[in-house]
Amino acid sequence: MAKSKEFRPDWSETPPAEGTFRAIFKYGDPTHFKHPSDQWYIMLKDALGMTDSDFRHKRGEGREPVAMDRPCGLRAAQLDALAAIVGRENTTTDVYQRTRCAYGKTTEEMMELGQGVVREIADLVVHPRHKEDVGHIVRYCHEEKIPVYVFSGGSSVNLGLRPARGGVTLVMNTHMNKLLTLNELNQTATVQPGMLGPAYETALNQAPERLGARRRYTGGHFPQSFEHSTVGGWVVTLGSGQASTYYGDAADMVVSQEYVTPTGNFKTLPYPAAATGPKVNDIMKGAEGTFGILVEVTMKVFRHMPANRRYFSFMFPSWEAAVDASREIAQGQFGRPAVYRISDPEETDRGLKLYGIPALADRFLVKRGYLPMQRCLCLGTVEGDRNYTRLVKRKIRTIAKQHHAIYLGTYASKKWEKTRYREPYMREDLHDYGITIDTLEASVAWDNLHTLHQGVRSYMKKRPRTICMTHASHFYPQGTNLYFIFIGRFDHVDDYRAFQVGILDHIQKYGGSLSHHHGIGRMIAPWIEQHLGKEQMAVLRALKHHFDPRNIMNPGGQLGLDLDETLQRKSR
Amino acid sequence: MAKSKEFRPDWSETPPAEGTFRAIFKYGDPTHFKHPSDQWYIMLKDALGMTDSDFRHKRGEGREPVAMDRPCGLRAAQLDALAAIVGRENTTTDVYQRTRCAYGKTTEEMMELGQGVVREIADLVVHPRHKEDVGHIVRYCHEEKIPVYVFSGGSSVNLGLRPARGGVTLVMNTHMNKLLTLNELNQTATVQPGMLGPAYETALNQAPERLGARRRYTGGHFPQSFEHSTVGGWVVTLGSGQASTYYGDAADMVVSQEYVTPTGNFKTLPYPAAATGPKVNDIMKGAEGTFGILVEVTMKVFRHMPANRRYFSFMFPSWEAAVDASREIAQGQFGRPAVYRISDPEETDRGLKLYGIPALADRFLVKRGYLPMQRCLCLGTVEGDRNYTRLVKRKIRTIAKQHHAIYLGTYASKKWEKTRYREPYMREDLHDYGITIDTLEASVAWDNLHTLHQGVRSYMKKRPRTICMTHASHFYPQGTNLYFIFIGRFDHVDDYRAFQVGILDHIQKYGGSLSHHHGIGRMIAPWIEQHLGKEQMAVLRALKHHFDPRNIMNPGGQLGLDLDETLQRKSR
Repeated sequence: MAKSKEFRPDWSETPPAEGTFRAIFKYGDPTHFKHPSDQWYIMLKDALGMTDSDFRHKRGEGREPVAMDRPCGLRAAQLDALAAIVGRENTTTDVYQRTRCAYGKTTEEMMELGQGVVREIADLVVHPRHKEDVGHIVRYCHEEKIPVYVFSGGSSVNLGLRPARGGVTLVMNTHMNKLLTLNELNQTATVQPGMLGPAYETALNQAPERLGARRRYTGGHFPQSFEHSTVGGWVVTLGSGQASTYYGDAADMVVSQEYVTPTGNFKTLPYPAAATGPKVNDIMKGAEGTFGILVEVTMKVFRHMPANRRYFSFMFPSWEAAVDASREIAQGQFGRPAVYRISDPEETDRGLKLYGIPALADRFLVKRGYLPMQRCLCLGTVEGDRNYTRLVKRKIRTIAKQHHAIYLGTYASKKWEKTRYREPYMREDLHDYGITIDTLEASVAWDNLHTLHQGVRSYMKKRPRTICMTHASHFYPQGTNLYFIFIGRFDHVDDYRAFQVGILDHIQKYGGSLSHHHGIGRMIAPWIEQHLGKEQMAVLRALKHHFDPRNIMNPGGQLGLDLDETLQRKSR
Repeated sequence: MAKSKEFRPDWSETPPAEGTFRAIFKYGDPTHFKHPSDQWYIMLKDALGMTDSDFRHKRGEGREPVAMDRPCGLRAAQLDALAAIVGRENTTTDVYQRTRCAYGKTTEEMMELGQGVVREIADLVVHPRHKEDVGHIVRYCHEEKIPVYVFSGGSSVNLGLRPARGGVTLVMNTHMNKLLTLNELNQTATVQPGMLGPAYETALNQAPERLGARRRYTGGHFPQSFEHSTVGGWVVTLGSGQASTYYGDAADMVVSQEYVTPTGNFKTLPYPAAATGPKVNDIMKGAEGTFGILVEVTMKVFRHMPANRRYFSFMFPSWEAAVDASREIAQGQFGRPAVYRISDPEETDRGLKLYGIPALADRFLVKRGYLPMQRCLCLGTVEGDRNYTRLVKRKIRTIAKQHHAIYLGTYASKKWEKTRYREPYMREDLHDYGITIDTLEASVAWDNLHTLHQGVRSYMKKRPRTICMTHASHFYPQGTNLYFIFIGRFDHVDDYRAFQVGILDHIQKYGGSLSHHHGIGRMIAPWIEQHLGKEQMAVLRALKHHFDPRNIMNPGGQLGLDLDETLQRKSR
């Protein structure tokens, strides 16, 4: 591997002190770090027009304590009433706690917090103990017209957690974080919404030891935020995971849900299918806390057979070849891979540098005609029954070969799997030196994929010294998603926002969906009415009015329900 | 085969005359018939306590012309206005046409029509030419408060087509019956809602010849009513087909839909997935015409590879063994069969008689321990890629064997496939001699299957001389459906209704869904509020009020939206 002999930036290895801005915006585990490789550092300097001297001084680290100067807007009687429901020990008006629970992992949140800017926070943080607590809280807040927000894993990347109108934030993963029942006959798990990904997956994997089950299971849901997101969060935001091509998106896994809403509580029926009118179970998915609060969910689970997992990776000569092969795989009716990803030429080349491809391997690829800024990396896995995974991998190899790919073995896929939850940790390293890395994503039908890719990419590449990497990672017979990653230097959060607005405008213009699996939140909300159309927004608003006539559930712009487009756009 | 040497009933081979009651209630093609086999005739007499003399005289044949005595309740100005929209030639006040379009294939409809009883009919039948016509009609009817009903294939089995409040019935399959576009890249077909199953499937199968396509496709949707139901009907009633275990239920195939509603028209976005809030595309599915009118739908299509289809059939020693094996197949994660059906012991034995099993084969089965009223027939097919179908069939054979099934080859499955759309034709043969055959169906989770089966079956078998056959035919990892077929002599339609009410009560009591794929209509509507609960019914009513504030869309009990439960129950 190439080495930077003279200088390596002082990438931070210092966990943020409790109570600081950085403790709020740092991604993931406070004591975990992942730094750019030396090759990547060289690449970054080159691509962004920077020199070592740009990496000598950090800025906006946010290591100062959060200022303790936010009054609580609730009256004493209200605080007492809420404390009487959940117990005083499960409520706090501590400003730091209120601030912590007001933030997700949206890039502009990090940029602002790094400069000591704090936006709206809740007046009170409450940790409900069980669904009855949630019921009582929502009923009381409905009577008193107190806004109610929900915080769990805190991994939102679209300002979905911002308590724009103050009020109460419910923290769901403090107590409501348990697997309630595993039903082996039905292959379902009933879960409290605040259960984090690793706890859920471990409980299922170790079902024989922990629950006396006959088999091991998997939830099949592995978003990049897996370690810091919850089962409930996956459902209410319509999340997808890295293996969703096989296991389905979060919405597909939901058998039934129990909700608390201002106008009533209910549990949808747990049938595998039914022809009993429009399904309220579907209507609730993706409401992002604006209709009510998910207090229990029954999810499909799958047999856990890691010994059968097969890995593969390929290099395609071009993006067109990679896309064509992937479509053939998605439509071939021989089964589906679990993980399946293709990187466009820029991501492929920068990714190879990130992972440190040996020079020898690079020369071999070039010699065989797989050229930089043309070649495209594909990697993935197959899961399921042993014979099935063998068949599907064989089919994928055949199709890839027909599209002139070279098989690269299992190494790249295994390496990716090992580090797949670690990439976001680099964002603070870059942020410390004034570099912003962020992502936006869209779904797209096959016939519009190249138009969307080129349209958005052209816009991004017009900005000088901006890296734009794209991959597709969720495959359906009818299309896929495009995941755009951009890296650039932004002097001010407003510059960054202006660039982001342009990307969303171009996603809209070139026919992508506004989100494939990140959700809408407040960040993308200004585009939603034009995207869905007035008639469909009116349907969502009718539902909102039905469930929450006083607009206390996650009010203030979420999903674009309670601000008109112009205002929302200005409000950001 | 055993032969009835002395007497064979004069099963009708006379097509019903145009304009008669029988022309309305006869199932399927007027010139097609399928009669009970001689073995079945013997079985029927035995099971129902009948003799040859009961089959000498027909009753309630309904061969009389429909009486022409129904006034039209619309004013001349209204008739003129509607004629001005679609052209006079596309409207009619003819009583027979109005009666024909007021009926589906619900058993109680046949029983009443056979006795010359006609319930509510529309005032006017309209044949819209295109979606713009539908838009104009709905807008006009909204202004004038004229009820709007939809008729297409006419295969409803739950009083879903009854124009309970008069008004206008739109016939969708006269003009709006075309495949508009086939998108091979996306594997989607955009279709007008009134396209009948065979026209749709043939167009897809013959896409190279007809549309210049590169490949052949299939819609993958084959309900028993395939020949007499439409793509739009499948979607708005949440239908399933016989191959849905592989291809998915109708709702799963819908990429996007275009609707006309009294409060606005819209088209949902055609993304393969999206995280942009609750999906109006899902909300509309199953609305059974109460929210608006589906005027265009984009469906997923699949590659048509009939040469790869593999057939199988097994005999299991018991229902428990058949269920256990089927669950293992549904959960095994090696792919899925297309058709997959298991019959309970009563259906197995009566089915063997219906198809005329050779005595030799029966003796062989008995000798091997597969005993009458214990053994269970399983049959099915696998579709898709050639290697995939080989693998899936092999897996199914292995699992069946582990559950002590004997492999019966491909004959039973192929025979079933040939005659699968023909069984309903027997209902008029039986009806002519005072025998009623009818079905009700429910979905159920695996852990409740036996309870539901026994609970409903016990109720049915308490009635003397009543045949009750049950199969499961739609398989999911989380459960399946139970399809109950009963045959008995009912002196009066009220006796029949009382028995049916009891079955629905028992489906509810023993935890089945009210419908797996027949929908709700008006027949099952009285149970829906208790089934879904008040809160979820309130959600559906809020949507209804949003789309159709004047209640003109399929009003009068459909889906239980506009009558309280007590009234509905009485109203039937």
